[in-house]
Amino acid sequence: MTRRTVVGVMGAGNTLGKTERQIAVALGQAIAREGWVLLTGGRNKGVMDAVSEGAKGGLRIGILPGKDKTDLSDHVDVAIVTGMGNARNNINVLSSDVVIAFGEGGAGTASEIALALKSEKHVILLNPSAESIKFFSKIDENLVHVTNGVEETIDLLVNKLKLKPKRQKS
Amino acid sequence: MTRRTVVGVMGAGNTLGKTERQIAVALGQAIAREGWVLLTGGRNKGVMDAVSEGAKGGLRIGILPGKDKTDLSDHVDVAIVTGMGNARNNINVLSSDVVIAFGEGGAGTASEIALALKSEKHVILLNPSAESIKFFSKIDENLVHVTNGVEETIDLLVNKLKLKPKRQKS
Amino acid sequence: MTRRTVVGVMGAGNTLGKTERQIAVALGQAIAREGWVLLTGGRNKGVMDAVSEGAKGGLRIGILPGKDKTDLSDHVDVAIVTGMGNARNNINVLSSDVVIAFGEGGAGTASEIALALKSEKHVILLNPSAESIKFFSKIDENLVHVTNGVEETIDLLVNKLKLKPKRQKS
Amino acid sequence: MTRRTVVGVMGAGNTLGKTERQIAVALGQAIAREGWVLLTGGRNKGVMDAVSEGAKGGLRIGILPGKDKTDLSDHVDVAIVTGMGNARNNINVLSSDVVIAFGEGGAGTASEIALALKSEKHVILLNPSAESIKFFSKIDENLVHVTNGVEETIDLLVNKLKLKPKRQKS
Repeated sequence: MTRRTVVGVMGAGNTLGKTERQIAVALGQAIAREGWVLLTGGRNKGVMDAVSEGAKGGLRIGILPGKDKTDLSDHVDVAIVTGMGNARNNINVLSSDVVIAFGEGGAGTASEIALALKSEKHVILLNPSAESIKFFSKIDENLVHVTNGVEETIDLLVNKLKLKPKRQKS
Repeated sequence: MTRRTVVGVMGAGNTLGKTERQIAVALGQAIAREGWVLLTGGRNKGVMDAVSEGAKGGLRIGILPGKDKTDLSDHVDVAIVTGMGNARNNINVLSSDVVIAFGEGGAGTASEIALALKSEKHVILLNPSAESIKFFSKIDENLVHVTNGVEETIDLLVNKLKLKPKRQKS
Repeated sequence: MTRRTVVGVMGAGNTLGKTERQIAVALGQAIAREGWVLLTGGRNKGVMDAVSEGAKGGLRIGILPGKDKTDLSDHVDVAIVTGMGNARNNINVLSSDVVIAFGEGGAGTASEIALALKSEKHVILLNPSAESIKFFSKIDENLVHVTNGVEETIDLLVNKLKLKPKRQKS
Repeated sequence: MTRRTVVGVMGAGNTLGKTERQIAVALGQAIAREGWVLLTGGRNKGVMDAVSEGAKGGLRIGILPGKDKTDLSDHVDVAIVTGMGNARNNINVLSSDVVIAFGEGGAGTASEIALALKSEKHVILLNPSAESIKFFSKIDENLVHVTNGVEETIDLLVNKLKLKPKRQKS
């Protein structure tokens, strides 16, 4: 009767440092534990891959930019193949009930934060750069939230943003 | 380690006749029974809605054309919100391991069959019109298959097209 | 004060036979002569390339599927780079005041005809296959027109569909 | 033999202040004077509308987010109708040889700057906020340029970025 809650996690496609990777994995674990669906950009790289690995046992959706599954992460359960390159970033944010941007990110992550704000989605900047906080808070201070660590992020989702436990009325 | 097998079902968004609706529901049931993920256009109408209703218990993905979930079927577990109108039809077919076009369809279904063939996907025409068989078989006779009823369709998927039971190497 | 009239020409990306190519070039010449903007899929192949070559002197827009201009026709004045593969077919038809599908086409052209009908655009099938006429006329007999040759096509556009000479109110 | 040079101008869709509007109009005039094609988001609002008005006499392309021409600017010569909402922002940047982001912009403009950098396009921030300069320069200092006024912008395009006068090899 009701669809499942979807949490989008965006972040750099570069190889992660050891600590960054551990945080991304822990974030995935926490999302799965809450019963939320994890949505990422689906590739076998960086934040997408690590957070999906962590969410094992939960449902992990990957929205691929390419026209096939060549670079799909091994930790994705269902691949959505868009064939539309970076324009798929807009699908990532429209399909997420809330967007978490992890780390300093790069141009791709920046575009996802901006597109999320354009569509009036709440965005959590988890361990962002100082420049990112200032830039995006100026665009929309009500939709932009800053957290430091996985625990604080989940707490904000559950207690402040009141994200539904598992399923919700559309 | 491996992603799940996805079967796309396309068909008219109009209200279905009683028999058509029963077949669509039975098709969804069979897809769920095989352990395949069902992918549809996601709206609360016609074939999309009925086949998703039938696949209850399995995983049902809906790829919506709109920019929000206003017209999402109650029988979809995870909504992918594209905001790109009929251009999302290409995502439907790229994301499916195989495409089933159910019934006579209309312009939307015709575009999905054509886009599937363009991307070299196998397409099963289930209870199609005579005109549809002739037109699409001429475009690609190796990729176009015609079936009559749910049982024959599942048999073709399993035995002829060798669709994997649940998960597969990407 | 008013935008220009746009005629979309769709057709196979394969190498054309000599007669087919002459017709495509003549179609482009006629479109330019009427003062209409020519819109095609933009690649340096088949119908897209030949009709653009013919429309020299007029304005020729090419809507490319790729993410750069690698395979742009030499006969296109302005390239729109979509990076979204065949999903750009929907942009081709939405941006055209009327769509001409030239020749027997293949899966790509079939998807464009279907998407055009889905968006309630008039479609002219110029020298189509018998199967195509039957299939698409059944989907929407009011929007589907069949012509034989360039002269008959321009006559239909001007006199029956009343396509505006050069510019029109949006 | 060669396609035309395209300059994309992005900026807020809000009503502009008097000075901002004058600068946008002057920017359009300068682009037309150089013989470049102007590409904008196409709507009858804000920067898109004002810069297109200024570029009268040149060729003005508008890439619309909607599925029809309802909100097309009166100052656009050729409308590209995408029907894909903000995902069209990626087409705006892919189709532009260089991107000018005018003013402080909002979430939409931010997404276009980010998508342009992701695709390795040069971006000129014309009269930006201090936060924008810091944020985007950190992402890619080689591709991000800051100018103050129309004259400095054209000078940078011609003399530093060596933008071709009118047409160029693809």
